[in-house]
Amino acid sequence: MSVLIVGSIALDDIKTQLAEHKNLLGGSASYGAVSASNFSPVNLVGIVGDDFPAEHIGLFKSRRIDLAGLQSVPGKTFRWSGEYMWDMNTRETRSVALNVFEHFTPKLPPGYESTPLVLLANIAPDLQHHVLDQVRQPRFTIADTMDLWINIARESLDRLVARVDMLILNDSEARQFTGETSLVKAGKKIRAMGPRYVAVKKGEHGCLLFGPEAEFFSCPAFPLEDIHDPTGAGDTFAGGLAGYLAANSKGDISFDILKKAVVHGSVLASFNVEAFSLERLKTVDSAQIDERYRLFQSISHFEKI
Amino acid sequence: MSVLIVGSIALDDIKTQLAEHKNLLGGSASYGAVSASNFSPVNLVGIVGDDFPAEHIGLFKSRRIDLAGLQSVPGKTFRWSGEYMWDMNTRETRSVALNVFEHFTPKLPPGYESTPLVLLANIAPDLQHHVLDQVRQPRFTIADTMDLWINIARESLDRLVARVDMLILNDSEARQFTGETSLVKAGKKIRAMGPRYVAVKKGEHGCLLFGPEAEFFSCPAFPLEDIHDPTGAGDTFAGGLAGYLAANSKGDISFDILKKAVVHGSVLASFNVEAFSLERLKTVDSAQIDERYRLFQSISHFEKI
Repeated sequence: MSVLIVGSIALDDIKTQLAEHKNLLGGSASYGAVSASNFSPVNLVGIVGDDFPAEHIGLFKSRRIDLAGLQSVPGKTFRWSGEYMWDMNTRETRSVALNVFEHFTPKLPPGYESTPLVLLANIAPDLQHHVLDQVRQPRFTIADTMDLWINIARESLDRLVARVDMLILNDSEARQFTGETSLVKAGKKIRAMGPRYVAVKKGEHGCLLFGPEAEFFSCPAFPLEDIHDPTGAGDTFAGGLAGYLAANSKGDISFDILKKAVVHGSVLASFNVEAFSLERLKTVDSAQIDERYRLFQSISHFEKI
Repeated sequence: MSVLIVGSIALDDIKTQLAEHKNLLGGSASYGAVSASNFSPVNLVGIVGDDFPAEHIGLFKSRRIDLAGLQSVPGKTFRWSGEYMWDMNTRETRSVALNVFEHFTPKLPPGYESTPLVLLANIAPDLQHHVLDQVRQPRFTIADTMDLWINIARESLDRLVARVDMLILNDSEARQFTGETSLVKAGKKIRAMGPRYVAVKKGEHGCLLFGPEAEFFSCPAFPLEDIHDPTGAGDTFAGGLAGYLAANSKGDISFDILKKAVVHGSVLASFNVEAFSLERLKTVDSAQIDERYRLFQSISHFEKI
């Protein structure tokens, strides 16, 4: 089963306290698509300028990522520049240049409208709506979002949340979105707004998954010794989760499958932060993914009473 | 098997954004002893003044807590007053009055020196040393500590860490103690200072356990909907862990038993924060503990690949 992914494709300049790199492949759809492609074919919807390096196109093509939905237009690719503080959790955006992204209207090429699984990676809620308007009865829809849209596009985001099967956001965004300090209360409150499932990401502390009938999963923390670049960790998580679901769910999506999808998303994210941009993500293979999945399990499971 | 617990016994005034209560039973040894007594008999070593309410003595006596090591002297009991902010994580100490605690020298009554399991609950490292000097070949020693001692008694704390089998501290303290931002690096660095095991508490995000030969456990987060008073959560965790070990380890203490002890400590702590002081802790029973242990497991375990 394929997964449709729409989101941003960017060229990033990233500075940490230890290194600085420029013109890196970035954007929520890039991370999401490469992550998902470990499990399933991807239909990618996005936009790049004529400065977008051919090697990145080559990366997508090498990985079961269909590019019929990738618009390549005159002008410059979306650019983002940011700097991480010592703790690798706090970051400051240095500059944003929307460039060709400013007038992006996601348009699905023929055939994409029937992709069974849809991941609306982190972009403006209006664009996410626009994609939902074009798909035909997808089996499962997932939306990722961020604080920016809670601040400047709340009304559109509220309507989006009511339209999707699953919402993904991080802990501070869940608190901001609901006004609740308790993440349990926040998760339940978001579910009451429409989505059957809510995933609250907690960075190195793992992830909480809320489902119907009080179903609940606390995905273990996987503390890493060396984090080189946290950029795209959330996008990689969402892509891995969506790709795993597309590849492994038949008929109804059970809570057990969703839990495994959340762990697989976490596994991919844990690889992604080990190097800048998609450098680690693009070399990880299925044996390494399986090995780390088992490691996630072995570090967090314990015996019965 | 019994557990020897030394620490503070206090009367607390606690204010949250929702409620305020005065003259509550508190102190690291009070929480630790009542928590541990769910699993094993406790030999309590501490000091109170002549203002210490008889009802608290009655609580200890009702729970397999031996009081031969409890000094009752003229003067006032140790008092602490604090206030929690909205997030229930940040707290400000309003006042501390050491009172009879100022000249406390823990002295073990006959028989206590051979208690096989020793929990040095959170008090000054010099007092923790003084207890270790009196015990005879305990099977397992655990020390809990806090940021205050890292700041004002570093040398004594360093020597203590080298003398115990297990150190317990929270995430910010582990970072402060080692200068490492990565908790994995911090845990390993503390182990290199002496203790076979290090437990790094992360509040609502769970706990990391480091052992020899790279053994590692990420205890799941147990997010609570309503936290009424976080006071004593760490002491309750340490007491539950120690009591469980005392009751359930024969011969060598395996990593599997330690993991179960960490989960049982977390279970007790999750009950403790549901009410002020020890109000919830003193009513919890073994059926409720077992039920929540199973809940911890069910919310965090996931299927094999």
